[in-house]
Amino acid sequence: MDKYDKVMDLAKRRGFLWNSFELYGGAAGFFDYGPLGCTVKRKVENLWRDFYVLNEGYMEIEAPTIGIEDIFVASGHVGGFSDPLTECADCGQSFRADHLIEALGIEGVGALSTDQLDEMIVAHNIVCPECGCKLGKSFEFNLMFQTKIGPGTGRPGYLRPETAQGMFVDFQRLSRFYREKLPFGAVQIGKSYRNEISPRQGVLRLREFTQAECEIFVDPDIKTHPNFDKYKDMTLTLYPQAQQADEAGKTIQKTVGEAVADGTVAHEFLAYYVALTNDFLISVGIAPEDLRFRQHLSDEMAHYAVDCWDAEVKTDRFGWVEVVGIADRTDYDLSAHAKQSKVELSVYIEYPEPVIETKFVVKPDMGKLGPLFKGKAKAVGDALKELSAEAIQNAGDEITVTVDGENFTVPKNLIAFGEESVKISGKTIVPHVIEPSYGIDRITYCVMEHAYDEEEITADAVVSDDEGDEKEEGRVVMRFKNAIAPYQAAVHPLMGKPELSAAAKKLFNEIIAAGILSDYDESGTIGKRYRRNDEIGIPFSVTIDFDTIEKETMPVTIRDRDTMKQILVPAAALVSTLKGLLAGEKTFEESGEIVSR
Amino acid sequence: MDKYDKVMDLAKRRGFLWNSFELYGGAAGFFDYGPLGCTVKRKVENLWRDFYVLNEGYMEIEAPTIGIEDIFVASGHVGGFSDPLTECADCGQSFRADHLIEALGIEGVGALSTDQLDEMIVAHNIVCPECGCKLGKSFEFNLMFQTKIGPGTGRPGYLRPETAQGMFVDFQRLSRFYREKLPFGAVQIGKSYRNEISPRQGVLRLREFTQAECEIFVDPDIKTHPNFDKYKDMTLTLYPQAQQADEAGKTIQKTVGEAVADGTVAHEFLAYYVALTNDFLISVGIAPEDLRFRQHLSDEMAHYAVDCWDAEVKTDRFGWVEVVGIADRTDYDLSAHAKQSKVELSVYIEYPEPVIETKFVVKPDMGKLGPLFKGKAKAVGDALKELSAEAIQNAGDEITVTVDGENFTVPKNLIAFGEESVKISGKTIVPHVIEPSYGIDRITYCVMEHAYDEEEITADAVVSDDEGDEKEEGRVVMRFKNAIAPYQAAVHPLMGKPELSAAAKKLFNEIIAAGILSDYDESGTIGKRYRRNDEIGIPFSVTIDFDTIEKETMPVTIRDRDTMKQILVPAAALVSTLKGLLAGEKTFEESGEIVSR
Repeated sequence: MDKYDKVMDLAKRRGFLWNSFELYGGAAGFFDYGPLGCTVKRKVENLWRDFYVLNEGYMEIEAPTIGIEDIFVASGHVGGFSDPLTECADCGQSFRADHLIEALGIEGVGALSTDQLDEMIVAHNIVCPECGCKLGKSFEFNLMFQTKIGPGTGRPGYLRPETAQGMFVDFQRLSRFYREKLPFGAVQIGKSYRNEISPRQGVLRLREFTQAECEIFVDPDIKTHPNFDKYKDMTLTLYPQAQQADEAGKTIQKTVGEAVADGTVAHEFLAYYVALTNDFLISVGIAPEDLRFRQHLSDEMAHYAVDCWDAEVKTDRFGWVEVVGIADRTDYDLSAHAKQSKVELSVYIEYPEPVIETKFVVKPDMGKLGPLFKGKAKAVGDALKELSAEAIQNAGDEITVTVDGENFTVPKNLIAFGEESVKISGKTIVPHVIEPSYGIDRITYCVMEHAYDEEEITADAVVSDDEGDEKEEGRVVMRFKNAIAPYQAAVHPLMGKPELSAAAKKLFNEIIAAGILSDYDESGTIGKRYRRNDEIGIPFSVTIDFDTIEKETMPVTIRDRDTMKQILVPAAALVSTLKGLLAGEKTFEESGEIVSR
Repeated sequence: MDKYDKVMDLAKRRGFLWNSFELYGGAAGFFDYGPLGCTVKRKVENLWRDFYVLNEGYMEIEAPTIGIEDIFVASGHVGGFSDPLTECADCGQSFRADHLIEALGIEGVGALSTDQLDEMIVAHNIVCPECGCKLGKSFEFNLMFQTKIGPGTGRPGYLRPETAQGMFVDFQRLSRFYREKLPFGAVQIGKSYRNEISPRQGVLRLREFTQAECEIFVDPDIKTHPNFDKYKDMTLTLYPQAQQADEAGKTIQKTVGEAVADGTVAHEFLAYYVALTNDFLISVGIAPEDLRFRQHLSDEMAHYAVDCWDAEVKTDRFGWVEVVGIADRTDYDLSAHAKQSKVELSVYIEYPEPVIETKFVVKPDMGKLGPLFKGKAKAVGDALKELSAEAIQNAGDEITVTVDGENFTVPKNLIAFGEESVKISGKTIVPHVIEPSYGIDRITYCVMEHAYDEEEITADAVVSDDEGDEKEEGRVVMRFKNAIAPYQAAVHPLMGKPELSAAAKKLFNEIIAAGILSDYDESGTIGKRYRRNDEIGIPFSVTIDFDTIEKETMPVTIRDRDTMKQILVPAAALVSTLKGLLAGEKTFEESGEIVSR
C-alpha cells in the first residue's frame, strides 16, 4: 500500500471519505465527506474565510450553481471547455483520445488538435482498450454538465465549472456595495462541476468539487498592495519559468520582497496573495517542505494573463499536485462580459489631484449654425466637434461633414478651435482581476496525507496505556493542527461503570457548552480508545477515573495525542485548560501535573 | 409598498439579495446572496450547526448534489415528484394547470388528477393567459433537474431535490461510524433543486435553494428522548389538526411536556425537535408572536408518516409560510432503499437483559436421514425444520416434504420436536427516521422581514447625530440579533482627516484581529454613516474623534443601533467591551460612560 491507499483506507474506515452512492455500486468522480471529513473540510473553509473575508475584507457572496448560457458564452466555457473524446465504433465506450496516446509514453499530447490526435491513433495503431475494435474520429466533448431550466424545451442551463463567474456577473452590484473604491473583492466558497470523461486520481479529480475563489478588482495602474509589508519578509519556495526551462533547475528560496524587486513575480499584488496562500496552506497543516509555488510557463498561461502561480503540494502517489492558482487575469473577464451583455463594466477613478491636460477643442458657433441647418444643426455641430486638429487645420475655407449619409458644408469662420487646458479629475477604467482560486477538496486530501503518520512505539514512549496493547504494534496518528482536527477533544470514563459515565458525561457537556466539538466514547479498553483517537487525530483525550469522583479536587487526566504524555488537572479547570491547549497559549507541560504510570 | 417590497428594496440596494444573472436579464427562481445576505445566511447556518452538530452530536456529512437514478427511484422522486403542466398548443408557453384553476378562486385543486384538471379547464373555459388559445392536455412534469454523467449517451443524473437522501444512502457507513448505537443522526447543509414550472413568491420559491436537514435514526420501540427535560417546560404555539378542522379554531399554547402527555404531539422524540426548532428560530431572530407549529392534516401527511409538524412564520405579504418540517417518517426511507438496492439496512439491537422465549423446534435425526436421502438429506432436514407445530402434530406416521419439486416421505419417528426455551439477546430492526428539515433561504428572508423596522425619530431619541439630518426623517433599522448581524461593528473616523483615519484604522485592525467582522467607513457625514449602519443592522458603531487621539485615555464613542445611545470607553478597552456587548454579557449602560450630545 502506498500512502494514498493507506490514507484512503483510514478515510473510508473512520468516516472521512466514502465513495458516493456505494449502496448502488457507486459512480466515478464523486466522493462523500463522512462525519470526520466534512468537519475537517468545514474547518479548512472557515480558516480560509478568516484569511479572505475577515482579514482581507473581501466579502462572501453566493450565486447559484446553475448558470444561464450567456454567462458561459462570455466566459468561453461554451466554446472552449472541452476534452478530446473518441468513441469505439463497436462497443460504444468513450475514451480520452489524448490519454490513450499518453499511455504509450508519448509526451506533449495536450496541445494537439483532434485531427492530430486521430493521426497519432492511426499511426500507433491504437484500438479500443475494451474490445479491440476501431476507434471513431476524435471530437471536443464539452465538460459542463448541462440541464434545462423550466418546462417544455426549457432554457439551457449549465452547472458552473467555476465559482468565479458569479463575481464577474455581479460586478456592478459589488462595485456599488464597495462605494466604487478600488481595490475591492468578493469570494465564493461552493460547488463547481466538471463532467470528466473518465475521472482518474481518485479524490483529486472529481466531477463535483468545492472551490474557494476570490476575485479582486484592481486599478490596472496600481498593482502595489497596501499591506505588502505584512508578507515582505516571508520566504517562499518558488519554481519560476527559468528554473523549469533548465533541466537541472531546482526550486529557489526567496523572500516575497526580493521576488517582486527582481521581477520573479510580476508585481506586489500578485506576490502578496502567493504569500498569503503560503501562510494559509501551512496554517491548515500542509508541510512547508512539500509546498512550492510554480510559475505557469508562457505556453500554459492564458493569452490574456500577466502572470500566474500555482501552489503545488507534494503527494506520495501523484507527485506535485496543483491545489491553488493565483493569476493576474487583466481586464479579460470584465471585458468579455461587457461585450456579451452590452453593458459597460467599469469604474470611475478619481485622481488624488486633478490633472491638467491640453486638448484640441472645436467650438462651432451654434447661434449661426441654427438658422443654416435648422433641425440638423445639433447633429452637424456634434460632427464638427469630433474632427481632429489635422482635419480642421488642413481644411480650406469650408469644411464638409456627413450626418446620416447627407453632406453638410460649413464655412470655417463659423468654427472656433484650438488647444485648451482641461482639468481632468478622473477616468473611467475597466479594472484588472487578481484571482486566487483554491481547490478545497485537494487541500483537504493533502492535509490528511500530510497529517498521516505511522509511528513505532518505543518502550519509554508508552506512558498512555493501561492495557499494554499499544506496546506490541505501532500506532497510526493523524497529526492534524488543533484548529483542523475533526474533534478537538474526546472524553472517556476509564471504564463503563455508571458512576464514572455520569461524571464523564457531565464534563463532556461542559466542554460542548464551551463550543469545543468533542467525542464521547466508553466502548472498549482505554488503550483501544486512545488509539482510535490517535487515528482520527483528536489532539486531547480526557479520562475520568475513580480518583476524579472520589477526590475533592476532582483530577482528570488529559492525554496529548502527539507525545502520549498525560497531565492531571482539576475537573473544574478542564474547560479552560483545554481552551488554552487548543489555542496554543500554553504548552502541555505547563498546563498540569505530568503523570507517569 | 408592502413589507416584502420594502425589505427586498433594501436587500437589493444594500447587498443582501440580488436577482441572479441580472446582467443578462435574469431568470426566475434564482437569487444571489450579496455580501451582507451571504454573511447573514452563513451565520444562520452556523447557529444551526451549533444546535444540531455541536449540541445534539449529529455530525455533518457532505454528499454530492448530483445523484444517480437508483437513489431517486427508491425515494420516489423519479416516479412522483411532479407538478401538473399544460402547454399552449399555439404559442408553446407552459403553465401550472392547477394554478390556472386556482386563479379563478377555486380551492382544493391540489389533490386533482390531470384528467380532472383538464375537465375543469374545459368547464371553466380556461385558455392560454398569454395568447388566448386552447391549452393542451395536462401532464405530470418531473421537477428534478436532469443531466447526464459522463460522455456519450451518458448515465442519467439528477440534481437532488433534497439533501436527506445522502444520509439514507450512507446509512450503513453512518451506522458503523456511530458504533451501531441508536439513536444516531447526521446532517447536511447544502443546495437542493426543484425545477419549478413558474416560480412565484420571489425569494420564497426558488429553483435552487439551501436546506439544512437532519436524519435521526431511532429504535421504533424507543421514541422517548434522553434530554427531554431540557425542553419539557418550554411553551409552544401549536396549531393541531383538531383546531384546523374547527372553523373557529385558533392556535393553542402548551408546554412541550403537556403536548406529549395529552397526545397532541405523537411522542417525545418528535416534540423535542419541535421545541428545539422553536428555540433555534427565536435565537436567529424570528418574532415569537409570529411563529407557530402547525400539524399536518391527515390528508397532507405522507401515508407512511406517524406525525408531522411545520414551523410556520407569519409574513406580511404571504401570510403563514412553512420554514421547517419535523416528521416521524417511520422506516419508509430505509425500507425503500433496502428494496431498491437489495441490501439489508438495519441494525442489531442488544437487549439490556436477554429475553427467554419458548419456541417450537424441529430436530430431524440427521444420522438416519443421511443413508435414506443421500445428497438430498440436508435439504430434506432443512425443509422439516421449517414445518409448523400444527403441520407436524397433525401428521400421521409419515410426513411428506417437497424439495426442488420432488416429494420426500419421512417416518415421523426420525423427527424430534417440541417447545424449547431460547435465550434471545437482541434483535435486528430497521430504524425509524425522525427528520427535522429546514429551508435556510426562507428562514433568512423571514429573519430579515422580522428585523425590518421603520422608526419615527422623536426629539429626545436624537442623541446620535452631529449633522441633524436624522431629525427630519424617520430611520430604517434592521434589528438583527447580534449573532446574526452581517457586520457586528463599524468603525468610523469622525471625519476624513489623515490623523483620525490612521487612529481609526488601527482600532479597526484590532477589532478584526479579535475575529469581529466589521465595516470601516469614512465617507459622508457621521449622521449618514450611522443611518447606513442602522439600515444594514450593525449593532455597534465606533467613532474616533479628536478626543480619542489627544487624550491619554483615548476615549472612543460606541453607539447602540437600537437605542441610538452612546457611551465612551477607553480605546484600550474597545475590543473587550465590544466582545462583552456582542455576547450580551453586559448591558450597554453598564459598558461605559453614557454621553449625551
